[in-house]
Amino acid sequence: MAQDYGANEYRVPEVMKAWVLGDPEQLSLVEKPVPEPGPAEVLVRIDAVAICATDLEIISHGPPAMIQGGLPFNKGFTPGHEYMGTVVSLGPNVDEFRPGERVTVEIHAGCGRCQRCRQGMYTSCLNYGKNYGDQNKGHRANGFTTDGGFAEYAVNNINTLVPVPDSMSNEEATLVVTAGTAMYGLDVIGGLIAGESVVVIGPGPIGLMGVAVAKALGADPVILTGTRDGRLEMGKKLGADNVINVRNEDAVAAVRRLTDGQGVHYVLECSGAPNALNEAAQMVNRGGRICLAAFPHDPVPVDVAHLVRNNIYVYGIRGEGQSATHRAAAFMAQRRFDATVIHTHTFPLEEVPTALRYARERIEDAIKVVVKMNHH
Amino acid sequence: MAQDYGANEYRVPEVMKAWVLGDPEQLSLVEKPVPEPGPAEVLVRIDAVAICATDLEIISHGPPAMIQGGLPFNKGFTPGHEYMGTVVSLGPNVDEFRPGERVTVEIHAGCGRCQRCRQGMYTSCLNYGKNYGDQNKGHRANGFTTDGGFAEYAVNNINTLVPVPDSMSNEEATLVVTAGTAMYGLDVIGGLIAGESVVVIGPGPIGLMGVAVAKALGADPVILTGTRDGRLEMGKKLGADNVINVRNEDAVAAVRRLTDGQGVHYVLECSGAPNALNEAAQMVNRGGRICLAAFPHDPVPVDVAHLVRNNIYVYGIRGEGQSATHRAAAFMAQRRFDATVIHTHTFPLEEVPTALRYARERIEDAIKVVVKMNHH
Amino acid sequence: MAQDYGANEYRVPEVMKAWVLGDPEQLSLVEKPVPEPGPAEVLVRIDAVAICATDLEIISHGPPAMIQGGLPFNKGFTPGHEYMGTVVSLGPNVDEFRPGERVTVEIHAGCGRCQRCRQGMYTSCLNYGKNYGDQNKGHRANGFTTDGGFAEYAVNNINTLVPVPDSMSNEEATLVVTAGTAMYGLDVIGGLIAGESVVVIGPGPIGLMGVAVAKALGADPVILTGTRDGRLEMGKKLGADNVINVRNEDAVAAVRRLTDGQGVHYVLECSGAPNALNEAAQMVNRGGRICLAAFPHDPVPVDVAHLVRNNIYVYGIRGEGQSATHRAAAFMAQRRFDATVIHTHTFPLEEVPTALRYARERIEDAIKVVVKMNHH
Amino acid sequence: MAQDYGANEYRVPEVMKAWVLGDPEQLSLVEKPVPEPGPAEVLVRIDAVAICATDLEIISHGPPAMIQGGLPFNKGFTPGHEYMGTVVSLGPNVDEFRPGERVTVEIHAGCGRCQRCRQGMYTSCLNYGKNYGDQNKGHRANGFTTDGGFAEYAVNNINTLVPVPDSMSNEEATLVVTAGTAMYGLDVIGGLIAGESVVVIGPGPIGLMGVAVAKALGADPVILTGTRDGRLEMGKKLGADNVINVRNEDAVAAVRRLTDGQGVHYVLECSGAPNALNEAAQMVNRGGRICLAAFPHDPVPVDVAHLVRNNIYVYGIRGEGQSATHRAAAFMAQRRFDATVIHTHTFPLEEVPTALRYARERIEDAIKVVVKMNHH
Repeated sequence: MAQDYGANEYRVPEVMKAWVLGDPEQLSLVEKPVPEPGPAEVLVRIDAVAICATDLEIISHGPPAMIQGGLPFNKGFTPGHEYMGTVVSLGPNVDEFRPGERVTVEIHAGCGRCQRCRQGMYTSCLNYGKNYGDQNKGHRANGFTTDGGFAEYAVNNINTLVPVPDSMSNEEATLVVTAGTAMYGLDVIGGLIAGESVVVIGPGPIGLMGVAVAKALGADPVILTGTRDGRLEMGKKLGADNVINVRNEDAVAAVRRLTDGQGVHYVLECSGAPNALNEAAQMVNRGGRICLAAFPHDPVPVDVAHLVRNNIYVYGIRGEGQSATHRAAAFMAQRRFDATVIHTHTFPLEEVPTALRYARERIEDAIKVVVKMNHH
Repeated sequence: MAQDYGANEYRVPEVMKAWVLGDPEQLSLVEKPVPEPGPAEVLVRIDAVAICATDLEIISHGPPAMIQGGLPFNKGFTPGHEYMGTVVSLGPNVDEFRPGERVTVEIHAGCGRCQRCRQGMYTSCLNYGKNYGDQNKGHRANGFTTDGGFAEYAVNNINTLVPVPDSMSNEEATLVVTAGTAMYGLDVIGGLIAGESVVVIGPGPIGLMGVAVAKALGADPVILTGTRDGRLEMGKKLGADNVINVRNEDAVAAVRRLTDGQGVHYVLECSGAPNALNEAAQMVNRGGRICLAAFPHDPVPVDVAHLVRNNIYVYGIRGEGQSATHRAAAFMAQRRFDATVIHTHTFPLEEVPTALRYARERIEDAIKVVVKMNHH
Repeated sequence: MAQDYGANEYRVPEVMKAWVLGDPEQLSLVEKPVPEPGPAEVLVRIDAVAICATDLEIISHGPPAMIQGGLPFNKGFTPGHEYMGTVVSLGPNVDEFRPGERVTVEIHAGCGRCQRCRQGMYTSCLNYGKNYGDQNKGHRANGFTTDGGFAEYAVNNINTLVPVPDSMSNEEATLVVTAGTAMYGLDVIGGLIAGESVVVIGPGPIGLMGVAVAKALGADPVILTGTRDGRLEMGKKLGADNVINVRNEDAVAAVRRLTDGQGVHYVLECSGAPNALNEAAQMVNRGGRICLAAFPHDPVPVDVAHLVRNNIYVYGIRGEGQSATHRAAAFMAQRRFDATVIHTHTFPLEEVPTALRYARERIEDAIKVVVKMNHH
Repeated sequence: MAQDYGANEYRVPEVMKAWVLGDPEQLSLVEKPVPEPGPAEVLVRIDAVAICATDLEIISHGPPAMIQGGLPFNKGFTPGHEYMGTVVSLGPNVDEFRPGERVTVEIHAGCGRCQRCRQGMYTSCLNYGKNYGDQNKGHRANGFTTDGGFAEYAVNNINTLVPVPDSMSNEEATLVVTAGTAMYGLDVIGGLIAGESVVVIGPGPIGLMGVAVAKALGADPVILTGTRDGRLEMGKKLGADNVINVRNEDAVAAVRRLTDGQGVHYVLECSGAPNALNEAAQMVNRGGRICLAAFPHDPVPVDVAHLVRNNIYVYGIRGEGQSATHRAAAFMAQRRFDATVIHTHTFPLEEVPTALRYARERIEDAIKVVVKMNHH
């Protein structure tokens, strides 16, 4: 926390250990040069990084943009985007941060030069993915299109940095981005939701953080649906007023029952289940809103007529936008909820493949698996 | 136009002619008592009423709310919702209008007592359909759940009335609600769209008005897609910069070509085609928005993943909300576009069944068929 | 809490005790007929009513609308607007509430028929004040233009009712409207303010509730300025991170100091001090926003140039709008803050004049003085 | 318009003529090196530049930020911010523009790294003025804090460039920023204002463009107030429905008369008159909004009570934000109004002092004085 370290307090080595992607599924631990921060950038010594389902996607299939737009599989880069660490050196003209500050990192820097970034919609940057290959448009999406956090160091744009208070552990700080995505979803669909009703579908990490953030914002009731009682119990700890195990009862019917037949104001869909959008549409009342923070991979049948007849708005979101990460971090710093409930396993940098396997296969009911560095 | 008629200038008869719905598809012309306006209501002598595709739906299947919510088929009521006329008498305490004023009529009055109405979202009224049968919650949706315009007189809440200037014909005034629906769609997805790019899918009445309103708002380019060259030519007259006949070329490819590969900012979907939402999602750029003003009746496959990965927002709309009808009427009064281009046929009240047939079967390429009263 | 009382459980008497305004400053306790609820209305048995500075204004000078618009001084009516009670009978067609439910009451019903009400801006109703005298436009502003809460019973539009949970005392429930005004102010200037910085000027009831609501929303820091240490201490209890006694130091300088020279994002001005708007403008950073929930009676010098050069937006608010009262009540029901901290004195209905004197003269450092009924 | 010039088509000289500011009021024409565009920048050959009242301020008193924040008077820089020209060379990695494209230039680039820029509020950049002296935060405000347009060449961030169509003259293109400021003002106070009523106070350049843009957006009526009949006539040509010469009648009374006593929805204040805000507040109805695009230099008495009691919102704006310049340019390209009506005088680069004098002293009723380059 912003002790007055001089910049030379940190002796930054010339090389570092980093996991690098080769062909799909091929990760190797190599030595790479430590990168140098440019204008508006800092170098962050990574202290911890959490594993997200999207990391598994990227390692198997390449970054999301590639899937749609035909970018080459991003060989040779370092994945990992939910990381935090310590600022160790500053790019030219940076005085917003000081070496020694602990920070957690938003994924999207934005290019700062397309129409969406100019509007403040940096997670919808039109130059996404153009920062490698022949073009260099400046957008960094950590661990998606530029080097990320399964390494000892990473360069970051100052726009992506969120200060971490002393009272927050490294592990907890890796969860800020996940909470930020949930916060953004609740922001775009509703904003000031105190006293309004919310369903969260799917008790994965974003869903569980969605429960916590919705409750911190005063939503009432917050209803969580899922298939596993253990996860639903975790949802209760994070603030869910009601949980529905969809193996035992129909989720739509249960929501109707819990809301006197009215349905809810908002649904945050975090399951990616094929029928989730249709169920969400049956759960909200007329004029209600749905945020999609997850998705099925293939096209699914959707009752579009119901959306139109009931004036329902549906918001697809890529991740944490409009500085929602800062707002989520503020709630966590104020101890509004205990995000660490979802942190289940920890491994050292050397064991990234094991960590990925725990996350993918949900070994020992893993939710958030954190890789923690051991700097000497 | 607000000449100073006294209230007794109009001798309102005790009975009137009205078309009344029996079993599905059964319309009969009967004599009914002329209704009396209550508080905050006026009696309108109907001078003209246009036919909308939804009228055909209602006559065959009942009002939309019934389909979802199980309301009884609304036997005995008078359909017709795109009407205009002359105020002939006032409810208690009404001084906002005077007998003699020409008005056109928004469909949704709103109940004024549910949460959505309290928010100003009266087209999403939670008491929709509760104004007949045992409940009387006060929401009127003309020609949907309460008596509409295939008659000589109708009662209307003052909130639904839009003044018609002298310079606007009765026929043109029946088109205000259609333009208002397009205006509302463009409002919720974009608002100030001058210089931004818009695709309108489907050159039906709402789509063609969508072209006209988008252009009046300064959108550029406005691209219209459809299957019939005659309709597309009409779109050009209303301001389309480009038209795409999807029988000749792929609409998505054409939009990409016309926008240098960028896609557009907004899509107003007015076709109800099964793949329209997916095509719209491929037409907008990252962060783009889609308004659904039409829908296929059955569930259709939707590429939800594309919506989420590209931060696309989708807005289903029931009709004209947030006073969009007033804004559309203002554009029409200012002659920003000639809505009468879409008015193709006229019939007298006695020939409503013929008028409906022309509209349903698109006889002589009918677009907007207007029923015009002959008051003596 | 919605026990299943039948409607006849409550024997509503024909007459009631009520304080009635004569000439300015003249209040008398009289017997009046108990009013009957009309459509969309209920009769509330008043259980408690808090005293607001505006009550003192109204009793001395008439309702605010009068001051501007030349309405006659509203002789013969019953003031008091921060009240709560129990639903005892229902108007025709009301099924949203049941006799026996405890409710607290928002001031503004809205007329439901002007352009502002149609937009959902019911606190800006254009027919404000037109509900007595010759016109009857239906807007009720409890205790402002229609009979209020210094009485045993009052009629209320269902739009104005907020359910009160069992766990909330009558006294606490009278404070919901005050918290709702603060909530509305924070909503219009910022909304999701977690992690953003807020100054509240003036630790009166609205200011203190502003501190509590800002903190509940996650604002950080929340800085309170005032002149009396006792009140500032109360602010700390309600969540203020910093308090500034402006008798000891310059408020603007202190805010700058506490924010590393940056200024804050938002100011909620609740003091009515002549220089408060100028100070607020010096406290916010470029692009910041100020909500005025209080005002000096006479025109004051304002540095308009500073507002324009720094892109500052200033929001005057009349009171609790956009259902902010419901959101505030939700926070209170969830025990996010203890509003009862500001409740200092209690009197019975018979002692309204004493209660008013305590409030006006701040006897024994009175903040919120509550009148509590003794129904037998 | 974007012919395919190669980059070397334009031989950019090493030195250029430029007017440079010395002590206040001291402008000299010197030879300076032609600057080089950096990343995300282009070099623009200036073809024309209009004179704004703010130029006169800056030449006499320094940039606005200095006045408040104590920056040093910006000696040695080149003023002029309403300019347009031709792209002649590109910074590294720029492919959004090509040499040969005609562009007009928004003033504010934004730093891209402060909280306001991250939100898209780049005209409220928190690093305004920090781009010279010891700090280099990257914000460029052309002709305010960095070199502007009274010169042959200027470097510009690509975010600030608006393409100019072939059909628009150089002179007209200099007026886009002025129209953009009016557009931004109407956007923040109202947006979709078709059919709503607007008063514009003050027929200076921004006010006259405000009339034109309000009318293009469909506002009705648009009422213009001022002191000179010639200017008011110009307002009529640009679309004002009513004009009020405040020397002949009271502006507030006239607005009330023209709106049946209702007042208007919005006021765009462009006069800077001491009582303008108070008059605006009397002109709008309850819940109305006021945009301040001009200001008196000294504090003025303001009736704050009226703003609060009537729920009036007041928006100070620095200039053209949220890409309003693009929207204004779109209207102008579509010939919605003839901005050249306000262009009255033209001088060559050598005669900048004369041009400034015409503008300052309103010689021959000068409104917009344009300096036009003669490139050989």
